[in-house]
Amino acid sequence: MKRVTERGTVDFVPPSDRIAAFDNDGTLWPEQPNCIQFIFVVDRLKSLAQVNPALRRTEPFRTVLAGGLDGLATLGAEEIIEIIKTTQSGMSTEEFSGIVAEWLGTARDPRFGRLYTDLAYQPMLELLDYLSANEFKSFIVSGTGADFIRVFAEETYRIPPEQVMGSTTATEFRLGETGPVLMKIPQVEVLQDGTGKPVAIDRFIGRRPIFAFGNSDGDAEMLQWTAAGPGARFVGLLHHTDANREWAYDRASKVGRLDKALDLAHANDWTIVDMKNDWKIVFLTENDSPR
Amino acid sequence: MKRVTERGTVDFVPPSDRIAAFDNDGTLWPEQPNCIQFIFVVDRLKSLAQVNPALRRTEPFRTVLAGGLDGLATLGAEEIIEIIKTTQSGMSTEEFSGIVAEWLGTARDPRFGRLYTDLAYQPMLELLDYLSANEFKSFIVSGTGADFIRVFAEETYRIPPEQVMGSTTATEFRLGETGPVLMKIPQVEVLQDGTGKPVAIDRFIGRRPIFAFGNSDGDAEMLQWTAAGPGARFVGLLHHTDANREWAYDRASKVGRLDKALDLAHANDWTIVDMKNDWKIVFLTENDSPR
Repeated sequence: MKRVTERGTVDFVPPSDRIAAFDNDGTLWPEQPNCIQFIFVVDRLKSLAQVNPALRRTEPFRTVLAGGLDGLATLGAEEIIEIIKTTQSGMSTEEFSGIVAEWLGTARDPRFGRLYTDLAYQPMLELLDYLSANEFKSFIVSGTGADFIRVFAEETYRIPPEQVMGSTTATEFRLGETGPVLMKIPQVEVLQDGTGKPVAIDRFIGRRPIFAFGNSDGDAEMLQWTAAGPGARFVGLLHHTDANREWAYDRASKVGRLDKALDLAHANDWTIVDMKNDWKIVFLTENDSPR
Repeated sequence: MKRVTERGTVDFVPPSDRIAAFDNDGTLWPEQPNCIQFIFVVDRLKSLAQVNPALRRTEPFRTVLAGGLDGLATLGAEEIIEIIKTTQSGMSTEEFSGIVAEWLGTARDPRFGRLYTDLAYQPMLELLDYLSANEFKSFIVSGTGADFIRVFAEETYRIPPEQVMGSTTATEFRLGETGPVLMKIPQVEVLQDGTGKPVAIDRFIGRRPIFAFGNSDGDAEMLQWTAAGPGARFVGLLHHTDANREWAYDRASKVGRLDKALDLAHANDWTIVDMKNDWKIVFLTENDSPR
């Protein structure tokens, strides 16, 4: 940090170029046993089925309504997109944000018994604050829906909506009776893990980060892209090693597999954070006051 | 401005929600007789034809190489995209930025004899500074290529690349011998005028601006979307009325037609800026020091 923020040194980076890119799931909050957006999607599908029971008889909805997250896990990518379309379109962008906000305000992680936003990793929140205090601008680059993350990112991470990149459901501008609305339509553009992350960074940010943090193979290309720029760089990888306080998984995990990126980190001297040994706390307890 | 920045008043808007959206061509710099990116494209096609003379015998390139901007004006949207693909792909993102920067550093507007970046409207630069001083974040929302505008937006407008939305040429992440590169590939996604602008705002910014400025019918929906939000709003429209100092055009113009949006502005009491009567200066002269 000293190298890039001290004027007059060879590695000095002007504040406007202090761009940091973060993966979200498994990097800023948990992704086990499933990405949190998928838990939302299953809950939302259940609500929709109460209004429209025909969903219980139609695949791929039936599988998810009958089997929950385990059912969802058996589906292929196209079927999952079908579920996303059904649960996340047909309403205005504002209605959707309201639905997500309501869910985040009530749904609790079954293992920890906490609101999901309370499970943002405390050391990462401190890191975000530290970067911000040093005039970095932090972005999220995630395969999860941008409009899902945007609902809580500003309050939880202090990352404003315009610094959140993710998968998107297309919207359509309509002039309704009460004025213009943006309706979410059943058309999904996935921000792909892997090469899709540096591509999205170029598209949304238009310059290369000098700092990037991820936790899985899906982040490898984003980390490589960040590492390969000129001057001082920070590339971090969170290794989930703490089955007691959070989860332990890496090379064999289906969700958030960390294999190739771990090898790259060792080979290239990236910073590996060992959750069990490096983090004094993972989550604040319910009695702690937020940072 | 006082209403949205004074704490404790009913219209107060916290700085994070002070989002401003600007059209680029015809709003921040000229678009007559053609969008400046098209002038670049014609020049670039000429350079390519020196290396690859076959382009002179192949449509739609032949029309543009023979007829210049007039030739380009006869082409349909698909042919223009063909020209964009040919002139703006096949190189890395960094090479492309270098090509644009070199062109902007040398090409001169034939009527005014100035570098194009010197033709940014001085009153709009002052407006951007004024917004910035009041903790607004200004974004560009343009049909022109994002990676074209990003090359000069930070220096000319003080708008960083991540606050520039525009049409995009897709990129592909490749691991070359010297490390990763993002190659521009011949695949164009157009940010459409009209309804495409509020859609892009939702996608990139994720919240509704409280301030928007445009100059043509292509900006109408962005202005409507901005105007329709709650609380205090500013919606501005630049009317090009000054044939002596710049250009005069509106309802009958092929480029930057201002017809429907002018009616909307009158009907909804948007702020119409009459270039001839409202602006003391349009461009700085070569002897003026920049703001």
